[in-house]
Amino acid sequence: MISTPAQVHVTRKARFSAAHRYHNPAWSAEKNREVFGPCNNPFGHGHNYEVEVTVVGSVDPATGMVINLREIDKILQEEVISRMDHRHLNEELPEWRHRVPTTENLAIAIWERIAPRLLGGYSRLFRVRICESPDLYAEYFGEETP
Amino acid sequence: MISTPAQVHVTRKARFSAAHRYHNPAWSAEKNREVFGPCNNPFGHGHNYEVEVTVVGSVDPATGMVINLREIDKILQEEVISRMDHRHLNEELPEWRHRVPTTENLAIAIWERIAPRLLGGYSRLFRVRICESPDLYAEYFGEETP
Amino acid sequence: MISTPAQVHVTRKARFSAAHRYHNPAWSAEKNREVFGPCNNPFGHGHNYEVEVTVVGSVDPATGMVINLREIDKILQEEVISRMDHRHLNEELPEWRHRVPTTENLAIAIWERIAPRLLGGYSRLFRVRICESPDLYAEYFGEETP
Amino acid sequence: MISTPAQVHVTRKARFSAAHRYHNPAWSAEKNREVFGPCNNPFGHGHNYEVEVTVVGSVDPATGMVINLREIDKILQEEVISRMDHRHLNEELPEWRHRVPTTENLAIAIWERIAPRLLGGYSRLFRVRICESPDLYAEYFGEETP
Amino acid sequence: MISTPAQVHVTRKARFSAAHRYHNPAWSAEKNREVFGPCNNPFGHGHNYEVEVTVVGSVDPATGMVINLREIDKILQEEVISRMDHRHLNEELPEWRHRVPTTENLAIAIWERIAPRLLGGYSRLFRVRICESPDLYAEYFGEETP
Amino acid sequence: MISTPAQVHVTRKARFSAAHRYHNPAWSAEKNREVFGPCNNPFGHGHNYEVEVTVVGSVDPATGMVINLREIDKILQEEVISRMDHRHLNEELPEWRHRVPTTENLAIAIWERIAPRLLGGYSRLFRVRICESPDLYAEYFGEETP
Repeated sequence: MISTPAQVHVTRKARFSAAHRYHNPAWSAEKNREVFGPCNNPFGHGHNYEVEVTVVGSVDPATGMVINLREIDKILQEEVISRMDHRHLNEELPEWRHRVPTTENLAIAIWERIAPRLLGGYSRLFRVRICESPDLYAEYFGEETP
Repeated sequence: MISTPAQVHVTRKARFSAAHRYHNPAWSAEKNREVFGPCNNPFGHGHNYEVEVTVVGSVDPATGMVINLREIDKILQEEVISRMDHRHLNEELPEWRHRVPTTENLAIAIWERIAPRLLGGYSRLFRVRICESPDLYAEYFGEETP
Repeated sequence: MISTPAQVHVTRKARFSAAHRYHNPAWSAEKNREVFGPCNNPFGHGHNYEVEVTVVGSVDPATGMVINLREIDKILQEEVISRMDHRHLNEELPEWRHRVPTTENLAIAIWERIAPRLLGGYSRLFRVRICESPDLYAEYFGEETP
Repeated sequence: MISTPAQVHVTRKARFSAAHRYHNPAWSAEKNREVFGPCNNPFGHGHNYEVEVTVVGSVDPATGMVINLREIDKILQEEVISRMDHRHLNEELPEWRHRVPTTENLAIAIWERIAPRLLGGYSRLFRVRICESPDLYAEYFGEETP
Repeated sequence: MISTPAQVHVTRKARFSAAHRYHNPAWSAEKNREVFGPCNNPFGHGHNYEVEVTVVGSVDPATGMVINLREIDKILQEEVISRMDHRHLNEELPEWRHRVPTTENLAIAIWERIAPRLLGGYSRLFRVRICESPDLYAEYFGEETP
Repeated sequence: MISTPAQVHVTRKARFSAAHRYHNPAWSAEKNREVFGPCNNPFGHGHNYEVEVTVVGSVDPATGMVINLREIDKILQEEVISRMDHRHLNEELPEWRHRVPTTENLAIAIWERIAPRLLGGYSRLFRVRICESPDLYAEYFGEETP
């Protein structure tokens, strides 16, 4: 019924726990407090993050897969979990020294680490979604935002 | 790595509990019962609704944010929660006098109240999703439906 | 390793959606409003209720079961779902004319309807839990409260 | 405020439990084991699947609905639940004799069964999403993949 | 404020996916079908199981722990996950040759494997809960059932 | 049907986000690392905590309630949320200077703050449950542990 190869989106979820703090060093203490509220508390607070990586591509007839899950799991482990889990993002990861670790920026930062590792294959990164809590998530689709 | 400002989608979830009834006054009792089934029961029934508001825009480098969550929370509180929570939609809100409060219509009605409040800013409303139960939700993307 | 027949607790979950209102007719409008807050709104509001019924008994070696799930499902359907789903509890069910339909009272009322139907069998009702929202539930264990 | 009829996406979720096995008969036992890992175990394993069907269309002003849920429920029951629930997909359904029952292929197969049943109405199938576990899901949008 | 050492219950959750079939070889095909319904389908079906292990004991003042989670994780991995995950219980595990793999029996069987490994320590196994689906779980408390 | 006043358990859930670190200053760095693993990372990490408070008591016939939820909400806000939310427990709360902020100790500490506020009323604190992640929770029942 389908003549061209079917394109399917596959989404894999992983989890990590980290501390972070919202702070812009170019601003006064008052301004930081006013804009970021309790997220500016000096020692940071933390979350159980859920990150969802969506890959799109043709289904390989031999495997029935767009991508082998072990490949995504390996990339997620190396680029996200092993770097961020049980860490204080601002204090321990260089990329957050000069960038506020908001949910939005985390989505972009995770995209930037994962997307290059999927280049050249039959599938490509479609979306990174990161949930900071059950009530807040951010999604980044790369430069081709819908 | 990203030359044009990154567009990120941010989604905020809120909850309210309300009663409603499906009824079209232009129809006979039989037709109402036939089309709407138990949703037509005269005194109404109710749900724990979850509403998700998705905003899209560029990330402000100073804050790392597309929009300050307090702004979305204030809009959700004023336009959705304070009006709908602990209410019988048909009996207490004028907009449901002549419109069936289905999940579909709720998605549109919430869009219509929220979208104007986000005009003129750097971000815009992308989607309203409303879940009536774990097994049913409706999504409205405005006139630019994908 | 187990000489006496093993006692196992089996829990079955069901869902229904209903409207209700908290109101004590013996009180003034002010007192009702003061005690019950928005739960006293005149036309009621509603919830997606989850009810969990826990039965305890010996495992029958022939079936591996404490009770056949179809039996619990039939009781839940007849005593809870068919009576309460898509109903306004105060307006449509006689037992709520003179009893406030709080989560506590719902737990007791469901126990009273289900417990007698399990008498005489090899298992007995152990607990009724009812969740009004993800953040509130009540549990009733009959007269042998732990 | 909306001149053209509003397009709304409605999503309905259903559940089924099934066993499956990943195996390509054209390959050696070693290659199957290497590619599919424990998913290749000879007797199969199983999952609680969640399938979400999203339909898009204009809201009928008389009903407030894009499609009557009973219609979707009937299609889901006939095409998915009654065929797949409590089955071993590879052993009992002919379409999986020569196709690996991955999450990707399940999404396509469910689309192929449901999409024709929605032709000619006012709404059309937009997406089939199937979740094999809380950490993995696949989505198929037909030939018009976004 | 607490003079005797505080007793705390700690619960750890793990997940596995398995296939199973309900069948009593002492019965006729008709009787099996009548009692077990679709759970008797010959090739089996499957579930994503969640198993919760609850341990109770005094909190060690030096660690703040009742038991080191790595110890529970190791026991769960060896006794449950590595044996049951991605398996067809009836076909691949000897203990299910002559015992119906119901949720009740799974709770007992997991207790029997885990409880001896916790003997002699400062904490003891209090409960095994196993969820076959979001709507069904069984709990076993050993011979001291509450 | 019930002659003695029915005892019902009511459970209220609240959420907070905090950072913490597991560290025993009486131990060497090696021993801390060995026992606590990545939980000993120097700057801490964090979680979205869910705390459930269960109160037991007789249902007041006038209100249908064991306790007015606003009362529990006020206690939870004052004793838990306002103190712990968006905080680094070790760095900002005196009680964690000399106590490891494990899930076990958090359950006890929250009990100690909440139980006295419920003394003298018609209901009493029955259990504090705190979930650090979807896969780990601790429960404290006071000195009358079941």
